[in-house]
Amino acid sequence: MDAQPKSTQNSAGRERTFPLNAWYACAWSHEVARNALLARTLCNFKLALWRKPDGAIAVVEDACWHRLAPLSLGWIENGDVVCKYHGVRFRGDGVCTHVPGQESVPPNACVRSFPAFEKYRFIWVWTGDPALADPAKIPDMHWNDDPEWAGDGKTMFAKCDYRLFVDNLMDLTHETFVHATSIGNQAVAETPLTVSHEGNSVTVQRLMENIDAPSFWRAQLGKPGNVDRWQIIRFEAPCTVNLDVGVALAGTGGLQGNRSQGVNGRVLNTISPETDTTCMYFWSLVRNYKLGDQSLTVQLREANARIFVEDQIVLEAQQERINALPHLPLRNLAIDSGAMRARRIIERMIAAEEVGSSR
Amino acid sequence: MDAQPKSTQNSAGRERTFPLNAWYACAWSHEVARNALLARTLCNFKLALWRKPDGAIAVVEDACWHRLAPLSLGWIENGDVVCKYHGVRFRGDGVCTHVPGQESVPPNACVRSFPAFEKYRFIWVWTGDPALADPAKIPDMHWNDDPEWAGDGKTMFAKCDYRLFVDNLMDLTHETFVHATSIGNQAVAETPLTVSHEGNSVTVQRLMENIDAPSFWRAQLGKPGNVDRWQIIRFEAPCTVNLDVGVALAGTGGLQGNRSQGVNGRVLNTISPETDTTCMYFWSLVRNYKLGDQSLTVQLREANARIFVEDQIVLEAQQERINALPHLPLRNLAIDSGAMRARRIIERMIAAEEVGSSR
Amino acid sequence: MDAQPKSTQNSAGRERTFPLNAWYACAWSHEVARNALLARTLCNFKLALWRKPDGAIAVVEDACWHRLAPLSLGWIENGDVVCKYHGVRFRGDGVCTHVPGQESVPPNACVRSFPAFEKYRFIWVWTGDPALADPAKIPDMHWNDDPEWAGDGKTMFAKCDYRLFVDNLMDLTHETFVHATSIGNQAVAETPLTVSHEGNSVTVQRLMENIDAPSFWRAQLGKPGNVDRWQIIRFEAPCTVNLDVGVALAGTGGLQGNRSQGVNGRVLNTISPETDTTCMYFWSLVRNYKLGDQSLTVQLREANARIFVEDQIVLEAQQERINALPHLPLRNLAIDSGAMRARRIIERMIAAEEVGSSR
Repeated sequence: MDAQPKSTQNSAGRERTFPLNAWYACAWSHEVARNALLARTLCNFKLALWRKPDGAIAVVEDACWHRLAPLSLGWIENGDVVCKYHGVRFRGDGVCTHVPGQESVPPNACVRSFPAFEKYRFIWVWTGDPALADPAKIPDMHWNDDPEWAGDGKTMFAKCDYRLFVDNLMDLTHETFVHATSIGNQAVAETPLTVSHEGNSVTVQRLMENIDAPSFWRAQLGKPGNVDRWQIIRFEAPCTVNLDVGVALAGTGGLQGNRSQGVNGRVLNTISPETDTTCMYFWSLVRNYKLGDQSLTVQLREANARIFVEDQIVLEAQQERINALPHLPLRNLAIDSGAMRARRIIERMIAAEEVGSSR
Repeated sequence: MDAQPKSTQNSAGRERTFPLNAWYACAWSHEVARNALLARTLCNFKLALWRKPDGAIAVVEDACWHRLAPLSLGWIENGDVVCKYHGVRFRGDGVCTHVPGQESVPPNACVRSFPAFEKYRFIWVWTGDPALADPAKIPDMHWNDDPEWAGDGKTMFAKCDYRLFVDNLMDLTHETFVHATSIGNQAVAETPLTVSHEGNSVTVQRLMENIDAPSFWRAQLGKPGNVDRWQIIRFEAPCTVNLDVGVALAGTGGLQGNRSQGVNGRVLNTISPETDTTCMYFWSLVRNYKLGDQSLTVQLREANARIFVEDQIVLEAQQERINALPHLPLRNLAIDSGAMRARRIIERMIAAEEVGSSR
Repeated sequence: MDAQPKSTQNSAGRERTFPLNAWYACAWSHEVARNALLARTLCNFKLALWRKPDGAIAVVEDACWHRLAPLSLGWIENGDVVCKYHGVRFRGDGVCTHVPGQESVPPNACVRSFPAFEKYRFIWVWTGDPALADPAKIPDMHWNDDPEWAGDGKTMFAKCDYRLFVDNLMDLTHETFVHATSIGNQAVAETPLTVSHEGNSVTVQRLMENIDAPSFWRAQLGKPGNVDRWQIIRFEAPCTVNLDVGVALAGTGGLQGNRSQGVNGRVLNTISPETDTTCMYFWSLVRNYKLGDQSLTVQLREANARIFVEDQIVLEAQQERINALPHLPLRNLAIDSGAMRARRIIERMIAAEEVGSSR
């Protein structure tokens, strides 16, 4: 196997923006089929993914050991990937099993392979030291295939640093402005938030008592009258942010845990870096009511997709300015306390890897 | 306010190509409305422009102090700009007036603002030291809203250094070749020119006696017979070039100032650098005859726009070669004496700023 | 004439990938007309080509000595090129013959010219030291206008290093995989090849006895039954690869030189570098049977064009990976012995020029 660069800096020589020792969602389960190859970019790695005969997922660097042609152009034969250019074959663990025109395979012939694990309807890939790839560290997104919850999601490929989405999700103040016509209202911007953290996770809560419901939630609730609204945001480093959101009729105990008089959703988000300035954002929206209503599932998924495009427009424009104005820093306000904490955890994870690599 | 880089070199580290202590046309007056934001790039600055309740123009750096989202994505409220991302607000002078989720505004919160002045149907922006921004230094383009003149113009966004347009306008020899089928004829290339200069301005004259009129001017004159033709070009540093052009029946004194037997136009040009290799070229074509003929105004404007596209094609191709062949210099011929003088004044202005900045 | 950089490294500062002292095909003969200009890029040079009144070919750097406007935007007058911008004129040898607005031409006014020679239906251009430009060194592609052969070809502009096409042609193993549905079959990948070399040429042979014919050749042969198939590949440095290919009924002596019971074609290929990562690939397919069948000529040309697009897709993807993964080397297998030898000759030619330039 070739020596890999310790640090995947971008072409401008900037600092790495993501840890490598992490599980990143790289595809939806249904995107990786038995007889097809999927090409993805993750943490500046070019990857080819496929499903082996036993159903397990194989992930290798998407460049043939021989002449670097993308393996994802090729095909699968007996569970191995065959390079389209000269027919060189590799197993899912990257070992070369056949070379045309010669009897034996060169002993060093292989491509880099990556640990992969399928869970919660996603394919998770570990980009760092394989010895540390423990599936127990996959972030909790169990609502995604829990029979007590129903819903669906999509992938957004966005032209910005994945951390801009983390910032965005860690403070929902932006709903008031970016999503003024859908889920935003003045109460979000005005209600103070509380931040707590533990290990590699951060929790931000905003509890709004006795307010008018924004249009999206009013429609879900299906009843008139003021509501209590909660936004409980949980970040799990480096890039998963799950939201517990909903409204209940005011004074019925929704903020204290009795959600029987309200509607409750989970917005599950995990945003994987493709490169330093692009990302794949996997999200889904699930609910614990009307579980069998597929029409509602589609309606909520598409409504949410439209809302997230409003974020994408702002964040891609923000990235463009960050690129154009390298002398200007990002500033932090009170509303950014959750995002600041999340960024600090990410930085700590990256720094720990740098120390490790200099030993 | 953040420290600004003294010198706005381009990403390739090349020398600055424009002075900063100058008024640049940045928009037509009608492009900046009371309740809308306009995004422009000027001298490598990203700018957001709007009109305040009192009608005055506000110009600020188009990146929110908080997280750099473009302010031009936002909206105007009570004369302040509101950032679309989190609702942070700024006055036209760049001072932050509101931050969501906290009582007080951080004392250093502001964006850079730029002096702006509306004159001659243009919005002029000063990109350098605000203390030096004297509206009296705005170049004379008074014909543009003088009731004794009528006409209209357009903006061309071109992919070349603004100085290539200055070179182009300072020597109209190119009309013979670039505009062979419209305003060009052999007389232009063959008639010698005279160059004079004073302070930051240069004047180039080409007086052609008793020649056949080129097709454009023949149509304007509306009479047969040879003509006297004049081209009096006045450059005002760094990027304004006004042309006094016309023809009169030969021997009627047109070259000596009696223009009663001819037709007289002014081509007003000011070419503002966006970046080192792109520019916004504001031009208009005005006349002192048939003032109320709106149909003629449109016809002349559109005819001129077609002619200027011929220049754009050549100059963008020239820029492409300049980029590709950095080892080849630009050469000067006799016809370039006006352009050489103009370039020297520009260089002197830039050099004076460098001295100033090293104090 | 201006000093030219000794070494045309690309913008990333990588090593030169091609020798300059070589004849490169730069256009088909029919592409260069008497009264038209053709713009091409060759070895990182921007070139303007035209045909002089005597039929000879002129090739000059495509940037006017005066202000670098592309000469290819201009026109031809009395065999000279006239710059569209200001009318400056140059002879085919690059000497300036006219400058507008002044009596005399500056003594140093000229553009760089390049030796050119028309042969085998191509325009060949020498990019190195003109004193070494001997037409006898043009690679042998005589089948292209030999009356005993008939056929036609095309040009492919591909986004890859020209050497990837040389590698590709020097080992036809890839036919089995890239062209699985047309000319490929298992026999190609399984049959060993023999490599020999002499001076600046390399010959690779693959002789396949008594095999089933792949679909393309079966159709050409028009008969059932097993065949003997030959592929004799001759590389002439730096970038010409001519193939002698065909099949004959098995056992009729086709591999020993008696081709009367078979069909014989020549695939003539010369791949000229435009830049370090783009190339112009001139190819033709000729045959020594059914010489007058123009319909067959077209059918073969178009079938071959479709096959070559399959290569282009793979090689452009390979180039993309080479760019993205600079830490990964290209590896060599037994099947690459011809390509390795060809690459070594190219490297030797480049190295010889570097020595020359450091004297």
